[in-house]
Amino acid sequence: MTASQIETLGAEVKEASREVSRSSGVTRQTALRAAAETLRSERSTILTANEADLRSAEEAGLTATALDRLRLDAGRLEAMALGLETVASLPDPVGATVAGSVRPNGLKVTQVRRPLGVIGVIYENRPNVTSDAAGLCLASGNAAFLRGSSSSIRSNMAITAALRAGLGEVGLPEAAITLVEDTSHETAAAFMRLEGIIDCLIPRGGPSLIASMREHATVPYVLDGDGNCHVYVDRHADLDMAVRIIVNAKTQRPGVCNAMESLVLHAQVAHEVLGRLAVEMPEVRLLGDEAACTISPDMEAASPEDFGTEFLDLVATVRVVEDLDAAIDHVNRHSSGHSEAIVTSDVTAAERFLDEVEAAAVLLNASTRFVDGSELGLGAEVGISTQKIHARGPMGLEALTSTRWVIRGEGQTRT
Amino acid sequence: MTASQIETLGAEVKEASREVSRSSGVTRQTALRAAAETLRSERSTILTANEADLRSAEEAGLTATALDRLRLDAGRLEAMALGLETVASLPDPVGATVAGSVRPNGLKVTQVRRPLGVIGVIYENRPNVTSDAAGLCLASGNAAFLRGSSSSIRSNMAITAALRAGLGEVGLPEAAITLVEDTSHETAAAFMRLEGIIDCLIPRGGPSLIASMREHATVPYVLDGDGNCHVYVDRHADLDMAVRIIVNAKTQRPGVCNAMESLVLHAQVAHEVLGRLAVEMPEVRLLGDEAACTISPDMEAASPEDFGTEFLDLVATVRVVEDLDAAIDHVNRHSSGHSEAIVTSDVTAAERFLDEVEAAAVLLNASTRFVDGSELGLGAEVGISTQKIHARGPMGLEALTSTRWVIRGEGQTRT
Repeated sequence: MTASQIETLGAEVKEASREVSRSSGVTRQTALRAAAETLRSERSTILTANEADLRSAEEAGLTATALDRLRLDAGRLEAMALGLETVASLPDPVGATVAGSVRPNGLKVTQVRRPLGVIGVIYENRPNVTSDAAGLCLASGNAAFLRGSSSSIRSNMAITAALRAGLGEVGLPEAAITLVEDTSHETAAAFMRLEGIIDCLIPRGGPSLIASMREHATVPYVLDGDGNCHVYVDRHADLDMAVRIIVNAKTQRPGVCNAMESLVLHAQVAHEVLGRLAVEMPEVRLLGDEAACTISPDMEAASPEDFGTEFLDLVATVRVVEDLDAAIDHVNRHSSGHSEAIVTSDVTAAERFLDEVEAAAVLLNASTRFVDGSELGLGAEVGISTQKIHARGPMGLEALTSTRWVIRGEGQTRT
Repeated sequence: MTASQIETLGAEVKEASREVSRSSGVTRQTALRAAAETLRSERSTILTANEADLRSAEEAGLTATALDRLRLDAGRLEAMALGLETVASLPDPVGATVAGSVRPNGLKVTQVRRPLGVIGVIYENRPNVTSDAAGLCLASGNAAFLRGSSSSIRSNMAITAALRAGLGEVGLPEAAITLVEDTSHETAAAFMRLEGIIDCLIPRGGPSLIASMREHATVPYVLDGDGNCHVYVDRHADLDMAVRIIVNAKTQRPGVCNAMESLVLHAQVAHEVLGRLAVEMPEVRLLGDEAACTISPDMEAASPEDFGTEFLDLVATVRVVEDLDAAIDHVNRHSSGHSEAIVTSDVTAAERFLDEVEAAAVLLNASTRFVDGSELGLGAEVGISTQKIHARGPMGLEALTSTRWVIRGEGQTRT
């Protein structure tokens, strides 16, 4: 695909986005429900396309993990349809007034939520993202401009066709959900440079995708980055609670971004906590600093890089500190800006940690696993932003909107 | 300056930003007032530095307009000091809770405003931006990392030294206001790539600066773009009001981004409005489409590019349309996303225009000149964003903050 071809495709998506942005919430919700139904009725077509993707991927030697991410079955397809129906039941963010006042000169000023326009999504090989992302975009009045990976292209095309049929049923333009079918790197780079077309680009992928976005993107973007999440156990902590939180944060689902990757222990409780963890989560490989290895002579030594690593596995670093300042300093130094927790019964330590640690979420006496759109009441999750501008932390439908100033006068002029 | 030297400098600013972000509102407000005083007490030093800049600029052949922007005098310096005092009197945005709830599992969840951290500002040759930008950053708990132009470097250095003395007086780190003294393009490019140091970059300059940012910046940024603002006079409009608004929007201050650049007239009122404008603002050069030139045979013909031009002068394009749809279409096609107004007495036309025109601000029966931080009640203006993410339209101190999730529990774990 040439740069000019992707611009032409983008112009169609932009045009469709205008129509979607003007459509009523009930139209968009009906479209989402119709899309869920077409996903169900097109099940065999989608699964056949997915089988073809899987065969190519096996021949290309993809790992078992990658193949599992790529695989669809009746259950996963039904989960996608239910996902669309869930999003359709959320309150429509479009048109909400977020602030307003009457100025001394009588101007009535409000700030009103509007769709961003065209949301670009670049993602890796999980085909369900096609449906999830399109649903979130449509529910918030946006058009979805999707660029998935080459390994899932047949699945993504089949899913997109089904979703578009749903749009067509309610009279919305099918271009409002558009998949870029050319999966070359050149086209991806051109996609990231569609100024005036893509209003916000969201990557769903690993560090190499994010590095490529920073390098190539000229359109605005929101980064869904890594989570190198810490749990700090203070000197004054209920150690039963601390161990419960650590085990939950590390082991309940180790492969996700809000799992704990680093444990920070006050020196006065380190011995006790490490002893209990050896019993409560023996399956976790701990990599310690010098003090931790002195306490637990069997513990492997952590390398300096380990303290900055998101393992996404049953592995965690351990750092022993002499006081709260050292704990905050260590967390701020290694944090990826995602979620950081303290376990303490001391109110001064609690408030200082909550105030001084810079991350999208800071937690007191709770597992980092709670930092998630559904757990925090957002209904659906677009992603978890680890940047500070636009949206920080779990993003719901509102993160796919902007606010516009609406000013009503009676002929006022400025003096 | 090498890339490594600017990184080292940036690391100092980052360190200082942590201290500023933890300082109380009263400390920051006291620092701003102290900085205003040091600007006053260092007046002769600053004006001497400015004279040296002016001499070099004259030798280099800068235009009279550029020299005027560069020039400081006692009045302009006092305005800078008063600006700092005004910002010091605004409510502190840091720490405000913007949303909160208790989850069913008892977790207390709030979203709390926090400073962004380090704000990078790249600006052209007006030295007052050094003081204005530093004041806004400090008032919102951020560090200011400033890169001005080479022509104003001596002035900027003298102003920065005075502001830093103010910080020092209240015990805040002087690195919280840091000027990059190397004004080479290479250093500017390296500045835009200070990932992990600059949390938000704000350009204060023209289209070439913005194009350079899109190309080079890898840090998050907010664009303060052009204003190609339209006023549409509907078929049902009070024409006295329409003419008053047009004259105000075009002539009250033609060189600013919220001035009208394009006039759109319904065919049924075009003749009458153009006739009155010839009397009311004869000094404005109008460039018309075919229909406008037919009505006013003396009018110059507009080129296609003219309809997309921000003249910043006593010039405007005129487009005659057959109906509201054509008006909305014309505005959306040429809008720079800044401010767009309709003059009408018809509620259907009003609501359709306000709903369907995509811009940071849409106005009914009011001059576009009102789209400005102080007129809309923000107190101070960081700039006017023409992008949709993070902040849209006039930006106040809140635009220099982010929200963080603060989650308080009693040992909750996720199941």
